[in-house]
Amino acid sequence: MQNDPLAARLAEVVGAAHVLTDPALTASYTTDFTRRFGGPARLVVRPGDTGQVASVVRICAAEGVPVVPQGGNTGLAGGGVPRSGEVLLSLRRLDGLGPVDGTARQLTAGAGATLTAVQRHARTAGLDFGVDLAARDSATVGGMAATNAGGERVLRYGTMRANVAGLSAVLADGSAIDRLSGLPKDNAGYDLTGLLVGSEGTLGIVTALRLRLVPRPPERTTALLAFGSLADAVASLDALRSLDSLELAEFFLPTGLALVREHTGLPAPFTEPHGAYVLVEYAAPAPPVLDLLADLERLRDAVVAADSADRHRLATYREAHTEAISAAGVPVKLDVTVPLPDLAGFVTEMESLPATPYLFGHLAEGNAHVNLLGAADPEAVTETVLRRVGRAGGSISAEHGIGTAKVPWLDLTRSPTEIAAMRAVKRALDPYGLLNPGVLFPARPSGQG
Amino acid sequence: MQNDPLAARLAEVVGAAHVLTDPALTASYTTDFTRRFGGPARLVVRPGDTGQVASVVRICAAEGVPVVPQGGNTGLAGGGVPRSGEVLLSLRRLDGLGPVDGTARQLTAGAGATLTAVQRHARTAGLDFGVDLAARDSATVGGMAATNAGGERVLRYGTMRANVAGLSAVLADGSAIDRLSGLPKDNAGYDLTGLLVGSEGTLGIVTALRLRLVPRPPERTTALLAFGSLADAVASLDALRSLDSLELAEFFLPTGLALVREHTGLPAPFTEPHGAYVLVEYAAPAPPVLDLLADLERLRDAVVAADSADRHRLATYREAHTEAISAAGVPVKLDVTVPLPDLAGFVTEMESLPATPYLFGHLAEGNAHVNLLGAADPEAVTETVLRRVGRAGGSISAEHGIGTAKVPWLDLTRSPTEIAAMRAVKRALDPYGLLNPGVLFPARPSGQG
Ligand SMILES: Cc1cc2nc3c(=O)[nH]c(=O)nc-3n(C[C@H](O)[C@H](O)[C@H](O)COP(=O)(O)OP(=O)(O)OC[C@H]3O[C@@H](n4cnc5c(N)ncnc54)[C@H](O)[C@@H]3O)c2cc1C
Ligand SMILES: Cc1cc2nc3c(=O)[nH]c(=O)nc-3n(C[C@H](O)[C@H](O)[C@H](O)COP(=O)(O)OP(=O)(O)OC[C@H]3O[C@@H](n4cnc5c(N)ncnc54)[C@H](O)[C@@H]3O)c2cc1C
Repeated sequence: MQNDPLAARLAEVVGAAHVLTDPALTASYTTDFTRRFGGPARLVVRPGDTGQVASVVRICAAEGVPVVPQGGNTGLAGGGVPRSGEVLLSLRRLDGLGPVDGTARQLTAGAGATLTAVQRHARTAGLDFGVDLAARDSATVGGMAATNAGGERVLRYGTMRANVAGLSAVLADGSAIDRLSGLPKDNAGYDLTGLLVGSEGTLGIVTALRLRLVPRPPERTTALLAFGSLADAVASLDALRSLDSLELAEFFLPTGLALVREHTGLPAPFTEPHGAYVLVEYAAPAPPVLDLLADLERLRDAVVAADSADRHRLATYREAHTEAISAAGVPVKLDVTVPLPDLAGFVTEMESLPATPYLFGHLAEGNAHVNLLGAADPEAVTETVLRRVGRAGGSISAEHGIGTAKVPWLDLTRSPTEIAAMRAVKRALDPYGLLNPGVLFPARPSGQG
Repeated sequence: MQNDPLAARLAEVVGAAHVLTDPALTASYTTDFTRRFGGPARLVVRPGDTGQVASVVRICAAEGVPVVPQGGNTGLAGGGVPRSGEVLLSLRRLDGLGPVDGTARQLTAGAGATLTAVQRHARTAGLDFGVDLAARDSATVGGMAATNAGGERVLRYGTMRANVAGLSAVLADGSAIDRLSGLPKDNAGYDLTGLLVGSEGTLGIVTALRLRLVPRPPERTTALLAFGSLADAVASLDALRSLDSLELAEFFLPTGLALVREHTGLPAPFTEPHGAYVLVEYAAPAPPVLDLLADLERLRDAVVAADSADRHRLATYREAHTEAISAAGVPVKLDVTVPLPDLAGFVTEMESLPATPYLFGHLAEGNAHVNLLGAADPEAVTETVLRRVGRAGGSISAEHGIGTAKVPWLDLTRSPTEIAAMRAVKRALDPYGLLNPGVLFPARPSGQG
């Protein structure tokens, strides 16, 4: 590897310090966060700006070497780590942040800037970035755009696609597009920005983003609500949303609550047990008053946080789920959406699977994180759940994307015509299949155009 | 024409009553709203559902006959009328409306449903559609999606792209895609919906849409504000937006006001003349109180509407511009965006053109409707304005699209790489160039693949 002529060529572009071939140095790039995905990289290259990204891609294209783009490596679908000797192109050095434009409510960020850095920067100007997720310290805005990341505040601000006003990117042949003006009205041809968002590094390498910012409401009210059943919670959603200031509505169930209490030692949130729980948070210029709870017919009980310690405790009942489940075993993890009227039925059906289900998620979007412990045959149980989701007209990957992990199931919710259209777009922009092969579609045998 | 074998084939699919060849019957389809664009159609065909659209496209594709899709024929860029003997495919019969889903806040509408019909239907359920524009009685939601229409409320709700949760469409080969589930989180491949929105009928024919709905705020406050200059108005925008309930902020100038007063006979809105005027409207659950006006340093004067007659009068100062200008002559009409910090400078520069400028538009987006009266050389003055916009990093078509009208200027704000990428996408989805040839890109000599 040390004498790889490609490494030498790339070192001329990015500097020798930024071409890594020593396995001790490449290890953190070649295995993913879950340790389920990863493989050998030919080398890791860390360009420092868009021009260097373009040069790296051009050189790799000329040699026919495939490239895997990587941001913070927090993705959960196995799409950002090498599989079989690709060049791993890390965007993390492209982490610059431009000034906050308070009038346009926008900010230009390098693709490698972390979500935390972007949030901090926006908040210095009294604004905020609408998308938030727990991997914020490592996840990059480039990776979040590539996966169209969602998170908890989608019900108020939408997914990444709604929050990216424009971007710059390097295409498969090393040419670059620049749509960073962020004009709110600009109808001159196809929306290449929107096409790249969610394309998981298969159509282009995002190098910078023009991000939309939102006002940051200073006052918050957090409450934990108890319902007799998840169906009752779903039926109450219209009322909960009647205040526009609703920022999040997260559901969990008695089984998960029990596991969390065991794991954290927290007391029961209510004197009685209930069928379903919903954590809500409202944020507004003036402290949100939850008068609406008094009119919620199906509400069994509620605690409104009195102070920040209280708020933290209420949030922990929901947020400690992932940790508590992992402590109890190695779960099969799926991230699905079902149409809301079907959510309660879907959750109930999970109880008859040959595994112990723990479900929680984002109520307003019907987005359930399905965790299954003790499954003897993880593949079979995955297949069963995803087929059920497909039949319901749901999504087999609500937030995390297809990556390499879900490739076998893409056809459960995308028709042959849609897949053919996607493949045609892929071939149009990356005719030699050099950008992230194996992601979204099965990898072609190497050497084939 | 009457013995056109294609007409006979299509009549078998849609019924003879829905294949029009008589020029008396086709005239309203073959000339556009402005009477500037239009040409002969081989025939007009009016399918009644998605299946019939697919059959029509398949039959035309087999014969190599190009197809121009048309909705309400209110488009202003010459993209929805025939040029040289294409088949004109009208979507107007696809005007069905599904039930309002109050929990998902969504509605499925046929592509041929008018904006007015959609608004009325949404309002029966206490909701509204976020996009509004003056052509509402004729413009169809399919045509609005195809042009990514904007309008006055973009600052609050975004353009069509932000308000279309999914769609169904027929592609160039007659195959159909269906993304009407409207799932708010569904990351499984490229965003074909977003790609079709704004593609002006060149990539697929939209047959139905899943539309996002918004709460309809019952209380409105309308005011007309007077500033010393447009620059002062732009500098006040942050403060005007500090209330989230701002729905519109429309600017106009003393020259336009004078023309409108002459045309309508309305009295002067203020005792003194001012340098720039901004019509604002706030809409919220409780009557919006405009305390913020007291702190607006640059504000010279303001009238807050006391009743609905007053509101109507204030709105007329802005809305009668188009009519008043048309009554004064035949204007060169351009619709551009410039970055906000450049807006006031741009408007001033228009005064040195060899024509009389009337400018007004959407303040928050820097979107100016440029009307030029008495230009001796309309082409030359168009070129001058669009080049100026291009240099400023603006948009040569803020709302109306490229159509056939702006094809020569696409390269002013789109780089060769972007245009190449767009053409590659076009070729991928419509290899024989059968869908709306001549729109976005110059038409290829017929017969060429
Ligand atoms: C604790 C935790 C919580 C999470 N919570 C959420 C959540 O609430 N919602 C949610 O949606 N996701 C969540 N995720 C997963 C989410 O996908 C990632 O956090 C994030 O979107 C990926 O960003 P990244 O920079 O780490 O990308 P990576 O993991 O590096 O890459 C992800 C994908 O994007 C591609 N990519 C990365 N950068 C670029 C680029 N610049 N140009 C082109 N392609 C690129 C990669 O090739 C890969 O296919 C969570 C993950 C963790 C570990
Ligand atoms: C008085 C007036 C005011 C206006 N105000 C505004 C405004 O404020 N903001 C704004 O953005 N626009 C405005 N417009 C123009 C605007 O583009 C149209 O009103 C609307 O978006 C077009 O809808 P339509 O159904 O009439 O489409 P058409 O005019 O029929 O078609 C427009 C384009 O879309 C294509 N198309 C139509 N239907 C389909 C379909 N189902 N599938 C694929 N392609 C299709 C056509 O081929 C054509 O290229 C205004 C127009 C008028 C006359």
